[in-house]
Amino acid sequence: MKSSIDPVQNLAELIACPSITPAEGGALTVLEAMLAPLGFSVERPTFGEDGTPDVENLYARRSGNGPHLMFAGHTDVVPVGDAAAWTYPPFSAAIHNGEMYGRGAVDMKGGIACFVAAVGRHLEKHGGLNGSISFVITGDEEGPSINGTGKLLDWAKAKGESWDAAVVGEPTNPEKMGDMMKIGRRGGLSGTIVVHGVQGHVAYPHLADNPIRGLVTLIESLLYPAFDNGTKDFQATNLEFTTIDVGNPAVNVIPAKATATFNIRFNDTWTDETLMAEIHNRLDKAAGRHKLRPGKMAPVNYELTWRNRVSHVFLTHDEKLIGTLTSAVEATTGKRPQLSTSGGTSDARFIKDYCPVVEFGLVGKTMHMVDERVAIADLETLTQIYERFIADFFA
Amino acid sequence: MKSSIDPVQNLAELIACPSITPAEGGALTVLEAMLAPLGFSVERPTFGEDGTPDVENLYARRSGNGPHLMFAGHTDVVPVGDAAAWTYPPFSAAIHNGEMYGRGAVDMKGGIACFVAAVGRHLEKHGGLNGSISFVITGDEEGPSINGTGKLLDWAKAKGESWDAAVVGEPTNPEKMGDMMKIGRRGGLSGTIVVHGVQGHVAYPHLADNPIRGLVTLIESLLYPAFDNGTKDFQATNLEFTTIDVGNPAVNVIPAKATATFNIRFNDTWTDETLMAEIHNRLDKAAGRHKLRPGKMAPVNYELTWRNRVSHVFLTHDEKLIGTLTSAVEATTGKRPQLSTSGGTSDARFIKDYCPVVEFGLVGKTMHMVDERVAIADLETLTQIYERFIADFFA
Ligand SMILES: [Zn+2]
Ligand SMILES: [Zn+2]
Repeated sequence: MKSSIDPVQNLAELIACPSITPAEGGALTVLEAMLAPLGFSVERPTFGEDGTPDVENLYARRSGNGPHLMFAGHTDVVPVGDAAAWTYPPFSAAIHNGEMYGRGAVDMKGGIACFVAAVGRHLEKHGGLNGSISFVITGDEEGPSINGTGKLLDWAKAKGESWDAAVVGEPTNPEKMGDMMKIGRRGGLSGTIVVHGVQGHVAYPHLADNPIRGLVTLIESLLYPAFDNGTKDFQATNLEFTTIDVGNPAVNVIPAKATATFNIRFNDTWTDETLMAEIHNRLDKAAGRHKLRPGKMAPVNYELTWRNRVSHVFLTHDEKLIGTLTSAVEATTGKRPQLSTSGGTSDARFIKDYCPVVEFGLVGKTMHMVDERVAIADLETLTQIYERFIADFFA
Repeated sequence: MKSSIDPVQNLAELIACPSITPAEGGALTVLEAMLAPLGFSVERPTFGEDGTPDVENLYARRSGNGPHLMFAGHTDVVPVGDAAAWTYPPFSAAIHNGEMYGRGAVDMKGGIACFVAAVGRHLEKHGGLNGSISFVITGDEEGPSINGTGKLLDWAKAKGESWDAAVVGEPTNPEKMGDMMKIGRRGGLSGTIVVHGVQGHVAYPHLADNPIRGLVTLIESLLYPAFDNGTKDFQATNLEFTTIDVGNPAVNVIPAKATATFNIRFNDTWTDETLMAEIHNRLDKAAGRHKLRPGKMAPVNYELTWRNRVSHVFLTHDEKLIGTLTSAVEATTGKRPQLSTSGGTSDARFIKDYCPVVEFGLVGKTMHMVDERVAIADLETLTQIYERFIADFFA
């Protein structure tokens, strides 16, 4: 049980594994080697399906009498970007000026390193645990998220596992430790609109039907008016078009087809179903009243395809879980964290179907960037927060 | 002077030359061989510049006492498209059911073949000409039109040439010989709009500035309202967006840049200058009042680049030229051709700076298509029209 109580040492070992998504890179093996001595039984299920790479995952449980707490996260990391631009090599875990450099330092090998250390310290102090802890760790969070947490939870449930609460170790603090905890996430939906027109020469527009005109009409219908103004717990729903593509190099030619993709982040004003219906409704209405040119009504001929990654909006209402973690943060940092639902999606969207889930981790400022790094002091702070949380949760 | 009075034979020889733009393909050599025996002195200037292929052109003059008539056209043709889809090979000049098949049959080797035959017949009948005729033939009409008619006219003018009137042999009849003559052309302008935004994650739109929002605002400002409702001689000005491109494959990322290109065909309500000013004005106004999101005004950061091919609107007012050609068409076909300014641009836009110009040729229905073809009867009709026009013009 020696070094695993030191989050700095834990993190250095994890960063050294080049686990660029979806590669395991040795990271799960390192984690297994930390958990086994702490009394965890470790399993390493691999998932894959047609068209996706096989991905390794880890499920580790230490059983006891009492509630069952899940700690969830991922060891895969995003690519290093411009490797030459890093001050220290991205898998070197170099420490400089009180900061450890490395891809995954905050997102989120750091969170894992701290939770392992917290469990280690708790066991060292108390000799045991009044309940069970499971690590649900995937290698497919930064990628398509198809062969990761979702399947791992299904797999565990099929074995008879169930949980009382979960903490996700993603970096949740914008600037400083204690800033923010996440208690829900907006939902996310993506769709691609293809408008079919009739190709022709720009000099003879009456013989053609420019799909760009129809597409612009449809885009306007999704941009305006706003979907809502936000709720007590959530920001306003927001839709962004991420690309429009026609790819017509000929300046004299009206193209046959125009395509646009949008992503919408939505709050609990909506469910997936009501939002998709609203979007279809806006598009159909706009398509029906489309004017191709003065005096010429021409309904837009379009298709909408939903992308496969639908992530549902959720809000955690478990006041005991939220309160216990909030107290641990406040006791350690002196700050009461903001309870937020902002930002992107996380694997909490899978967990929320099994048990209440909150998210708290390191400071996310450098995540996904060149020179991703974490303050050594923050690693100690997060370990103390997690240790206090474990103690209170199982008390 | 034997075969050049037969437009069918002339055309077969021209079609056999695979002069896909900008290749000469032997077509100008064939034409030179037809014109030299008719008393034309033939020159073959080549033009080129950085970034464009060298293109061969032909200037042939038969001099006499009297006015100087220009016949203008091109021997280059568009690519054959799906060669396997042709009923007869595109350079075979095969005749079937009274039609000759081949790329360029109507656009516009056919027009050249007929004018050569008409000159040949006139000379055969009258032994000479009360004036001068010049052939201004380029190999760069279907391509970028940079090293073709424009430079050829400059070159001829520099040698001291001037003309009293011009006929362009492009296919002008939509359905049947005698339908339509062109007495002017709309102007054409193209522009590319680049909107610069700020890249970001779709979950944090307030940290980004989605250029697609700005671009859609700018596009709307050029699509609505219409620029004008047309004039006595011209159709309404019409603007089409030909492409929009962002090229962002990441559905979670707000892109940094969005680009759109438009083409506008404009009538004599506008000059190049007033129209460009109107477009700049619309864009600036729309950019200035752009709302990025509710409560957030953000002027669109855009650039507009005009494409290099500006073609000016023009209308020919020479009633003698129009009347002489109209009479020749009516006497031959029994139909009074519509005097039109519709359709795309042609090299007449260069000629109009030197002398009055009208356009009349074959039936354009199959131009640029697979199985481009011309009725043998139409070749004879057009030859007779041209011959009568020559006789009346020089009478
Ligand atoms: Zn992460
Ligand atoms: Zn042509």
